[in-house]
Amino acid sequence: MQPRAPAGVGSLVEDVDTPALLVELEVLERNMLRMAQSLAPTGAKLRPHAKSHKCPTIALRQIELGAVGVCCQKISEAEAMIDGGVRDVLITNQIVGSSKIAKLTDLARRASVAVCVDDLEHIGALSSAAQTTKVVLDVLVEIEVGTNRCGVPPGLAALELARRVAAAPALRFRGLQAYSGAAQHQREHIKRVEAAKDAIAWCRATRDLLRLNGIECPVISGAGTGTWQEDAASRVYTELQPGTYIFMDADYMRNRDADGNMCPDFEQSLFVWATVISRPAATRAVVDAGLKAVSIDKGMPLVHGVDGAEYVRASDEHGVLSLQTEPKTVKLGSKLRLVPGNCDPTVNMHDWLVAIRHGRVEALWPISARGPGL
Amino acid sequence: MQPRAPAGVGSLVEDVDTPALLVELEVLERNMLRMAQSLAPTGAKLRPHAKSHKCPTIALRQIELGAVGVCCQKISEAEAMIDGGVRDVLITNQIVGSSKIAKLTDLARRASVAVCVDDLEHIGALSSAAQTTKVVLDVLVEIEVGTNRCGVPPGLAALELARRVAAAPALRFRGLQAYSGAAQHQREHIKRVEAAKDAIAWCRATRDLLRLNGIECPVISGAGTGTWQEDAASRVYTELQPGTYIFMDADYMRNRDADGNMCPDFEQSLFVWATVISRPAATRAVVDAGLKAVSIDKGMPLVHGVDGAEYVRASDEHGVLSLQTEPKTVKLGSKLRLVPGNCDPTVNMHDWLVAIRHGRVEALWPISARGPGL
Repeated sequence: MQPRAPAGVGSLVEDVDTPALLVELEVLERNMLRMAQSLAPTGAKLRPHAKSHKCPTIALRQIELGAVGVCCQKISEAEAMIDGGVRDVLITNQIVGSSKIAKLTDLARRASVAVCVDDLEHIGALSSAAQTTKVVLDVLVEIEVGTNRCGVPPGLAALELARRVAAAPALRFRGLQAYSGAAQHQREHIKRVEAAKDAIAWCRATRDLLRLNGIECPVISGAGTGTWQEDAASRVYTELQPGTYIFMDADYMRNRDADGNMCPDFEQSLFVWATVISRPAATRAVVDAGLKAVSIDKGMPLVHGVDGAEYVRASDEHGVLSLQTEPKTVKLGSKLRLVPGNCDPTVNMHDWLVAIRHGRVEALWPISARGPGL
Repeated sequence: MQPRAPAGVGSLVEDVDTPALLVELEVLERNMLRMAQSLAPTGAKLRPHAKSHKCPTIALRQIELGAVGVCCQKISEAEAMIDGGVRDVLITNQIVGSSKIAKLTDLARRASVAVCVDDLEHIGALSSAAQTTKVVLDVLVEIEVGTNRCGVPPGLAALELARRVAAAPALRFRGLQAYSGAAQHQREHIKRVEAAKDAIAWCRATRDLLRLNGIECPVISGAGTGTWQEDAASRVYTELQPGTYIFMDADYMRNRDADGNMCPDFEQSLFVWATVISRPAATRAVVDAGLKAVSIDKGMPLVHGVDGAEYVRASDEHGVLSLQTEPKTVKLGSKLRLVPGNCDPTVNMHDWLVAIRHGRVEALWPISARGPGL
């Protein structure tokens, strides 16, 4: 039983029930095309991160436009993508535990699946499971280049793991996973460039060290919506993994370009559609989109297209707007668009993407990989 | 097609897949019983808020223990509760827009349904829809008593709305909705008590004003897990609406009692079950529960039962733990329990509550009302 959709195909956007996730198709398509066309001359391949959209329909469109496949963060995401027709998935994460590894080897029978490691013992577990299932798993060694999360340090630690992978039965060493998370959200262009250059230098040094030791890295995968230009120009990254560029969000929009302008590379295509359910005071309105419809981990959502309206507080099912003036468009029952602070966890709370073109619902796309990520 | 469950009934808790939402049944039952037994002698009825659990199984248990029904925040929640067998629902919110009001009147044919208003025009819309559908809707006037969200000021504004409701065809005035959200999370006991007393005084004054004008308030509904004792003792609130008390969370646990101790009324029954997927440094571990498995809007989750381990950063699918010592229980593949900062939006991200007793899965309860809340 599928969850109820907030609209039917063909509806006017005004008639879409709230809270809902709207995506403006023309903007989405422009964003997708811009990334694909910008990368084409650089030689870097595009492998967008599916954790942003969790939607096979979008993944397949990205692939039509030239992406080599997608990234996933969880087994459940990879499963949803492969079930939806994607044939090439890189899981940019460690898949740990026997039941999850069993799912991984099952998926590797159905599609090209690569996975990351940052631990010797883990390599042994993957190799045993792959042997038992009679598949060969592609494996990338994850190096820590500025996320302070998973990954071994660049250099010798990565070499040791790469050797082990290369020597392990039923595993094939494919290269390096190197995502600089911190770099993506540096507001000043120069700081993003510097952080990206650090990550690129660590990748290059590790790649060269491995080569000196007889191990080639066919793939060096990383990058995001904040540093894709530097990473593409580096000629070190062979694959880029941006996710947000298709939707954008308030946080990424705060990144500035070299001239100090708000990040102009991509446009906002994703909105949370909300209804004003209370106008208890001249300067206050309450909408029906709170913590369960829009994520606030990277700041409050922005109110789109209403001057002087600020989303100031979220509770479970309410968003409180502060109004400087009393806009005519913010009446009881008015619907308005919010720009999420962070698109990925916002998308994850919804069951449907309501795809809009020229003010009408063109399609309803299920967010098949939604969930806590088993 | 139901989303995959993280375990089968009868499994050992160690075998439950991650991330998952565990609920310790004995603790849950103690919490439910404690609230029910504490309220019984006060005369205040219990109408727990279902937005916390979104699970009809839990609602029915609360009702078995004496609750008169549940509260919901959204039409979709009310629908899930009524579909699940609940016969009495108060929607503690404004249901705005013709399609939602149509669903409301449909539900009112199937169960006892009450709803809130804070606007004259809205009363007209509800009355027309109820007349058309030939149902009578129970209506509470919401007054603003310290949440700064929906609701009219106590006193004359409430009287005006109550008169309109009482005069409107197909509506029945039932009383006041008065939730003091800000009071619930005051850390110091005395401040919670003061805020609760303010709300109680506003309710009493409004009730008395209405009575002077010939309008009785059979119901005054409000309160939460932070102020339930004061609200129950007030003899003003006729119904209490706590939600969190069944689960508890890190935020509510920071509330202090009159002696300055951490809030001792209820125990933590809800945990996010997570796997350590990376141990890249002696002082760092990474778990597979990030922003899509545990809400951080009221602070980071706590790591349960591991000394010196602190959850310091959440990204989409990762939680980074800082370790002061190197605990033996935090190895690659270890599973551990996180105490969510805020239980309600955490529950909303999961599809299943994994109900545990004596270390085994006793039941899997679908979180039927999960979602952005159409």
